[in-house]
Amino acid sequence: MADAPITLEGWYTLHEMWAVDRARWNALPAGERSAVVAEAAGVLEALADPGDGHSACFALLSQKGDLCLMHWRRDLESLRRCETEFAATRLRGYLLPTYSYLAVIELGTYELTGHATGMLKRRGVEPGSDGFEAALEAEMQKLARPRLHPAVPPQRYLCFYPMSKRRGEQVNWYDLPAGERAGFMRGHGEIGRKYAGKVVQVIQGSVGFDDWEWGVTLFADDPGDLKEIVYEMRFDEVSARYAEFGPFVTGLLLEPAEALRRVGLSE
Amino acid sequence: MADAPITLEGWYTLHEMWAVDRARWNALPAGERSAVVAEAAGVLEALADPGDGHSACFALLSQKGDLCLMHWRRDLESLRRCETEFAATRLRGYLLPTYSYLAVIELGTYELTGHATGMLKRRGVEPGSDGFEAALEAEMQKLARPRLHPAVPPQRYLCFYPMSKRRGEQVNWYDLPAGERAGFMRGHGEIGRKYAGKVVQVIQGSVGFDDWEWGVTLFADDPGDLKEIVYEMRFDEVSARYAEFGPFVTGLLLEPAEALRRVGLSE
Amino acid sequence: MADAPITLEGWYTLHEMWAVDRARWNALPAGERSAVVAEAAGVLEALADPGDGHSACFALLSQKGDLCLMHWRRDLESLRRCETEFAATRLRGYLLPTYSYLAVIELGTYELTGHATGMLKRRGVEPGSDGFEAALEAEMQKLARPRLHPAVPPQRYLCFYPMSKRRGEQVNWYDLPAGERAGFMRGHGEIGRKYAGKVVQVIQGSVGFDDWEWGVTLFADDPGDLKEIVYEMRFDEVSARYAEFGPFVTGLLLEPAEALRRVGLSE
Amino acid sequence: MADAPITLEGWYTLHEMWAVDRARWNALPAGERSAVVAEAAGVLEALADPGDGHSACFALLSQKGDLCLMHWRRDLESLRRCETEFAATRLRGYLLPTYSYLAVIELGTYELTGHATGMLKRRGVEPGSDGFEAALEAEMQKLARPRLHPAVPPQRYLCFYPMSKRRGEQVNWYDLPAGERAGFMRGHGEIGRKYAGKVVQVIQGSVGFDDWEWGVTLFADDPGDLKEIVYEMRFDEVSARYAEFGPFVTGLLLEPAEALRRVGLSE
Amino acid sequence: MADAPITLEGWYTLHEMWAVDRARWNALPAGERSAVVAEAAGVLEALADPGDGHSACFALLSQKGDLCLMHWRRDLESLRRCETEFAATRLRGYLLPTYSYLAVIELGTYELTGHATGMLKRRGVEPGSDGFEAALEAEMQKLARPRLHPAVPPQRYLCFYPMSKRRGEQVNWYDLPAGERAGFMRGHGEIGRKYAGKVVQVIQGSVGFDDWEWGVTLFADDPGDLKEIVYEMRFDEVSARYAEFGPFVTGLLLEPAEALRRVGLSE
Repeated sequence: MADAPITLEGWYTLHEMWAVDRARWNALPAGERSAVVAEAAGVLEALADPGDGHSACFALLSQKGDLCLMHWRRDLESLRRCETEFAATRLRGYLLPTYSYLAVIELGTYELTGHATGMLKRRGVEPGSDGFEAALEAEMQKLARPRLHPAVPPQRYLCFYPMSKRRGEQVNWYDLPAGERAGFMRGHGEIGRKYAGKVVQVIQGSVGFDDWEWGVTLFADDPGDLKEIVYEMRFDEVSARYAEFGPFVTGLLLEPAEALRRVGLSE
Repeated sequence: MADAPITLEGWYTLHEMWAVDRARWNALPAGERSAVVAEAAGVLEALADPGDGHSACFALLSQKGDLCLMHWRRDLESLRRCETEFAATRLRGYLLPTYSYLAVIELGTYELTGHATGMLKRRGVEPGSDGFEAALEAEMQKLARPRLHPAVPPQRYLCFYPMSKRRGEQVNWYDLPAGERAGFMRGHGEIGRKYAGKVVQVIQGSVGFDDWEWGVTLFADDPGDLKEIVYEMRFDEVSARYAEFGPFVTGLLLEPAEALRRVGLSE
Repeated sequence: MADAPITLEGWYTLHEMWAVDRARWNALPAGERSAVVAEAAGVLEALADPGDGHSACFALLSQKGDLCLMHWRRDLESLRRCETEFAATRLRGYLLPTYSYLAVIELGTYELTGHATGMLKRRGVEPGSDGFEAALEAEMQKLARPRLHPAVPPQRYLCFYPMSKRRGEQVNWYDLPAGERAGFMRGHGEIGRKYAGKVVQVIQGSVGFDDWEWGVTLFADDPGDLKEIVYEMRFDEVSARYAEFGPFVTGLLLEPAEALRRVGLSE
Repeated sequence: MADAPITLEGWYTLHEMWAVDRARWNALPAGERSAVVAEAAGVLEALADPGDGHSACFALLSQKGDLCLMHWRRDLESLRRCETEFAATRLRGYLLPTYSYLAVIELGTYELTGHATGMLKRRGVEPGSDGFEAALEAEMQKLARPRLHPAVPPQRYLCFYPMSKRRGEQVNWYDLPAGERAGFMRGHGEIGRKYAGKVVQVIQGSVGFDDWEWGVTLFADDPGDLKEIVYEMRFDEVSARYAEFGPFVTGLLLEPAEALRRVGLSE
Repeated sequence: MADAPITLEGWYTLHEMWAVDRARWNALPAGERSAVVAEAAGVLEALADPGDGHSACFALLSQKGDLCLMHWRRDLESLRRCETEFAATRLRGYLLPTYSYLAVIELGTYELTGHATGMLKRRGVEPGSDGFEAALEAEMQKLARPRLHPAVPPQRYLCFYPMSKRRGEQVNWYDLPAGERAGFMRGHGEIGRKYAGKVVQVIQGSVGFDDWEWGVTLFADDPGDLKEIVYEMRFDEVSARYAEFGPFVTGLLLEPAEALRRVGLSE
C-alpha cells in the first residue's frame, strides 16, 4: 500500500549555473562587451520582479560557474519564458551551461501538521473533536501560504544542493513505516528552527522533474552558518542514515548589473 | 531456469533531447534564422503524422535541453528515417545532443493477464475450462491493441525517465520467484489506475536497446500530477525496493512551430 | 590457487561508434559532401573483405551515434590499420567518437568441453579412457574453428553491449568454486541455444584490453528477438546474480554506401 | 539529537586547476605569447601577497592540468575577486578549467580540545575546576590562530585531494556516538604529528561549499613523503573504514613567472 | 595503529594518452603535416633516452586514443619537463588528451622480504641471528635496484590500467591484519612469476599522486598473454576479493616516427 506524505506546492523554481566562455569573451572588443552587458542587465532586471514571481542573480565561486540565475514562477510556462528571454541576450552566446535544477517549492505535511495541530490546540480545538479535520486543513493552508510563494530572501550568501532519500538495499527510506518517517522528519525540522534568523531554507520538491528528489536553497548573511547548518544536519539521524547529497554550489546574491561586474564582465 | 514474463510490443520509440548552441545561433542574422526555423518546422510537421506512426515536439525546461523530439514508429528503419530527416535540416547544425532513448512500447502480461481473465470470467469463461487459453490470448491481444499503437496523448506536460529493476547483492528483482514478481506488479498497477484521467503512462521496454530496462513517458495537464504519481509510486513496495531511476526530463507538448518559438528560435 | 577457465581465441575485434558533427557537415557544400562520401564508401568497402578478416558497417539509432564500424582481424596491428585507414578519409574529420570497444572472439571451455565430451562419447571415447585428453583437445579445436574466425552474420539488426561478472562484497563470481561456475555457465548456454536460428551471438573477451570483461555482439532479423534474448537471460541465475551490463547500442547492418546514405550523408 | 563537533575557521580557500588550450596557444605568435605571459605573471604576483591573504601558483603534473592557482582569503568576496582578476587576463582565454575546490581552513576541536586541556593542566588548571571552560576556550583560540590564517608553506611539492567520511549502509561515520568519533580522530592526528617537519597539512572544511566534506592540501619537500603519509593514513582505522577520497592532484610550488615558464608558456 | 607496508621507490612515471583531432589534422595541407610530424618525432626521439630515464611511444587501439607517451624519470621536475617539451611541438596542438596517470615504480616489501630472507638463508644468515636485519636491508636494496630503475622492456604490446584495493563496507583490505595481507600478496606474486619470460610487470604506486592506488603496466610479445595474466589474476583470492580496476588501455610499442606513421599522421 502506498502512503506518500501529502505536500503543498508553491513557486516552480529553476536554478541555472553558467560559466563565461573566456576564450571568446576576452577576445571581444571592450565597447561590444559594454553593450552586451547592458542588454543582459536590462533583461535580468526585468525578470527580477515581474509581478507574479521573482528572479535573482548570484555571482558563483569556483569553476562550477560564474553566474547563477534563480527563477521562481507560478508555472512551467513562465519558467520556460525566463529561459527564453535570457537565451535571446547576446551575453547568453558567451555563457556555457554548467548545471541546472528544476523543482517546485514544497512544504511537507510531516512538519506542517504538527504546527497546525499545535495552533488549533492553543485555540481549544482538540484532535478528534468535531470539525477538527477541516480546521486543520484551513490552518495548514494559512500557515503555508507565505512559505509557498515567498520573495527572495535578502541574505548575502547562497548555497544550493539537490538531495534524495536513500533507497539502499538495507537502509531504505521508502521502505520505512509512515509513522517512523514522520518521527524522523520532526526531529530534522528542529535543527532548521535552531537556525531561524540565521539561515532561510527553501525546500523544493523535484520528484518527476529532475534527477534528485529535492533541491535545497539556503540563504544566510554569514557563510559559516551555511556550513554549520549543513554539517549539523549531517549528524541528525534522518540525514545521517537516509540522505544522499548531490553537488553543492555557493554564491553571492547581487543586483544583476553588480553580479555581471563581480564576475568580470564589466568594470 | 529462466522465466522472463512475456510482453506484447507496439511502436518503437525514440526520444531525442537537444540544446540550442547559443554561441552560434545568436550570431546568425535574423533573416537566416527565420529561414532555418521555417524549414525545421516544415520537417517536424511532416513527421508528426505520417500515417503509420506519430512524432511530437516538446519545449524542455532547464539545461537538459531546449527541444525534445519523440518519434513513435513501426520499426527501427522508420525511427532512423526520422533521425535522418531531421539531421538534414539546417537547424540541426545549431543543436547539441543532450540525451536520447530508444525503446519499444510494451504491455506486461503481469497486468494484462489479470484484466483479460477478469473479462473472460464476466463472460463465463473460467480459467482451466476448455478453450480458456486460446480465449485468453485473443482477449489479451484485443485489450492490448490500442495501447500498443496509440496516438500521442493531448496532455500539455511531459515527463520522461528511464528505469531498471534493481539487481543488488541482496535485493535483486531477477532473483525473485515469478509468482512474487507478478504479485508486486499487480499492486504497482493499482497506483497507475488511480491516476486514470489525470496521467497517461506509456511504458517502453528497452532491454537490449538502451542502457536502462524501461523508458517511461508520462503525460498530464497538471505538472503537479506528474510529481505526485512518481512520488506515490516511490512508496509502492515494488518501486521502493526494486526500482532504480535514471535522469528525469520535463517538457511542454507544442506544435512544432510553437515549440521552436517557445525556446526562442523565432519570435 | 587461481583456476581461471581456459578459453580459445579467434578474431581480434574493434567496434567504433561515431556521430556526425552536423554543425560542420551541414555547412559543407553538397558537391564536397558527395566527394567525401564516395571516398569513405570506397575505403569501407575495401575494409569489408580483405581476405583475412571482415569489417561491417551499421547505421545506429539514437544520439549514441550514427555509424558503427566493426572490424574483425587476426591481430592488433591489423585492427590499428583499419582505424588508420578510416582516419585518413575526409569523412573522419566530420565524425565525433562516441564509444568504442576492443576485444577478441572467444569460446569458453565451460561449454565447449561439454560439447566435445558428448561428441567423443557418441564415438565411444569415454572420459578417463586412454587418449581421451588428446582426443578432447582435438575435438574442441575442431568444434571451435568456425566460431573463432567466422564471417559477419547476414542478419539485419545489431545489438552490442559490454558486460562483466559481478565482483561484489557478498556476491562475487570470482570467489565461487570452479565447479559451481561451470554449472552456472552450462545453464546459461541453454538459453543461447534456444535462440539458435534467430539470434547469432558473438562473445568477445576483453579482460586486459578494455574496461569490461566481455563484449557481446548479437545479430538478428527481428529486433524483438534481440530484446527477448537479453531479457530472458536476465532471469537466468548466472545473469540475475552475477552479470553487470554496460551501455547498449543498436544498429542496422548495411553495405557501406547504404549506411552512409541512411544516416543522411548522401541522398 | 545532532552532535556535530565544533570547528574553528580561518582562510576561505579556492584551488583552481587549468590546462593550457594548446590548439590555440601553440598557434599564437611568439611575440603575443610573451605579452600574454607578462601580463598574467604580473596579476599572479600581485595576488600572491595582498596583505590580507595569500595566493600561490603550482605547475601541475599530468593531463589533470598545467597550472593550479590556490587562493587563501578572509571571505568569499575576496576569493571571487581573485577569480575575476585572473579571468580578465588574456592568458585566461587560453586556459581550460579542469577542477576546482572551495573550502575554508578549519581546525577540528576533536584534536584541539585535547591540546588545550593538556596546556591548561601543565599550568595547573584542571578540567571541572572553576573557570576551566573559559580558560579552555581562550587557550584553544590562542593555539588555533596561526593555523587558521597561515602563510603558504615553502615546501616544493603540493598534493591536493577532497575527501568525505563514509555514509554507507552499514559503515556510517555520522551514525557513530560522538565519543567514538572523537577517539578515532585522536588516533588519526598522531600520524600527522609523526610527519611534523616533513609534511605540512592544511585541512579545509567544505560541507555546504563543495561536493566533498573536506579538502586536504599537503606540502612537502620530498614527494615520497606525500605518498607515504597518505598511504600510512589509509591503514589508520578511521581512514580505513570511514574515509572516501576524491581525485588527487600533484604539483610543484613556483613563483608565478617560473610556473608559467615550467608549463611551457614562456621560455 | 597504522601498519602500512614499506615500499621501495624508483622511476617516477607518467602515461599520457592522446587522440588526434582529425577535424583539424585532416584539414592540414600534406606539406605542413610532414613538418609537424618531423618535429614531433625529433622531440620524442630525444626524450626516449636522455641518460637518466626513459620514454617510450605506443600506438593505441580504439577511441581511447591514438598515442601513448610513457615517461620514466628520476623526479617530478623531470616528468614535467617531458610534458613541457612535448607541449611545445606543433603536433601537440592537434592532440586531445584522453587519459593520463602519474605514479612511481615501487616494490612491495611483502614480496621482497621473502626473497631477500631466502637469499640470506642460502648463505647461512638466519632470521633472528646477529646482523640479520642489516643484511636483510642490504639484500633487499640489491635485489630491488634493477627493478626500480629499469629500461623500457622490448616487448611489442602494452597494457596499462590503474587499480586500488577494495575499501568496501564488509570487504576492506585496509582493515585486514598485516599478516593476512602479507599472505595474500605472496600468493598473488606466484601468478606473476608463472608468466616470467612472457609478461613483464611494472607496478607503480600512486597513492597521493593520482586517483587510484596503483598503476600497472604490462609488456608482452603476445597480446593473448596480457589477457591471460589479467584474467588468471582475477581468480586469485586477493584480486577476486580485494581488487578494483580502472580503465584498460592497449597499445603497440614503436619507435616514435613509426608510431606517428601507424596512427596515420605520416605515410
